[in-house]
Amino acid sequence: MKVTKRRAAENRSRLVRAAGKLFRQHGIDGIGVADIGKAAGLTHGAVYARFPSKQALAAEALSEGTKRTTELMKSACAAQPTIGAYLDFSLNKIHRDDIAGGCPLTASGSETARQRKPVSRAFAEGFENYVAAVQEVLADNADYATTRERAIAIAAAEIGTLIVSRAVMKADLAYSNEILAAGRRVLGEVGGEYRQTAH
Amino acid sequence: MKVTKRRAAENRSRLVRAAGKLFRQHGIDGIGVADIGKAAGLTHGAVYARFPSKQALAAEALSEGTKRTTELMKSACAAQPTIGAYLDFSLNKIHRDDIAGGCPLTASGSETARQRKPVSRAFAEGFENYVAAVQEVLADNADYATTRERAIAIAAAEIGTLIVSRAVMKADLAYSNEILAAGRRVLGEVGGEYRQTAH
Repeated sequence: MKVTKRRAAENRSRLVRAAGKLFRQHGIDGIGVADIGKAAGLTHGAVYARFPSKQALAAEALSEGTKRTTELMKSACAAQPTIGAYLDFSLNKIHRDDIAGGCPLTASGSETARQRKPVSRAFAEGFENYVAAVQEVLADNADYATTRERAIAIAAAEIGTLIVSRAVMKADLAYSNEILAAGRRVLGEVGGEYRQTAH
Repeated sequence: MKVTKRRAAENRSRLVRAAGKLFRQHGIDGIGVADIGKAAGLTHGAVYARFPSKQALAAEALSEGTKRTTELMKSACAAQPTIGAYLDFSLNKIHRDDIAGGCPLTASGSETARQRKPVSRAFAEGFENYVAAVQEVLADNADYATTRERAIAIAAAEIGTLIVSRAVMKADLAYSNEILAAGRRVLGEVGGEYRQTAH
């Protein structure tokens, strides 16, 4: 019985990870439940036995994916958790080029507005989780915006920078690189990066 | 003959505008050529006679839409063209709530990476056109990033701010408003808004 429960949990987890990857790759509306089930080695019916709707699966995949990427960033930067390190982790060519393995907020950003409430909620929670991580490492700038406003604006701007750099990439790789570098530099400045280090 | 040519141009223009609206509303992959034709009063065949592929139609709709929104912003702010006025024009609740009538770079941002080269090129040209408009009104900040880097980062961040505020909206309207306001304020600061006006 214990083995069966563990296996059920493993199946569910494999399904959620497979769904997340396929949603990022093809868009939430661009892939069906049958194909997701197939990728996780499950039948269409077995998927619906675990998730009442595609929206529920999309919401859980978004939650799992954002939790994973935020934790990954925090642990990768644990030795020196600064806004510069966080931005280097997120705004780089490897992440830009890996839509299937990267941040789900970025991969599904504009289409989330077309999904239903559970997906919107998962997006909001995932985004807030990321904002909180950014806020923790922000230096107080003593400027106009508060630290929280700055953390929110930086997190949203990172998503915009990655989305735009991916969107222009097939037509103009040099421009894509320029956008990525400009976002990285300016957001470091917004986060007070150059005030944290001696220069 | 002149009348026929004019009518053909009008039909084409009506088709492109209808396509743009439907792509923004449903996503580029979320609407078919037949439905777009219907909305413009044209048959499926009449659409393909004008555009060799859905990608070609999506590219032209993106071009037309970005040109329109950038020109709209410039003319609306012509009396006082400042970064603050531009940000007020773009980052507000009316624009957030009007995905079908708003900026196509925002509506189709994350899914453009999944489209082919012509759409990517239209996105790149539309984005650069917007960046150039922003750059014209930026005050020199004498900080680390250049004016061009700042214009690029602001334009990408505006797209990210709108995308995130739309994505979380169904679940949490107050949070959506907070994101919009934070983006507006911080990007004004990045653009040197508070240095342009006396305070």
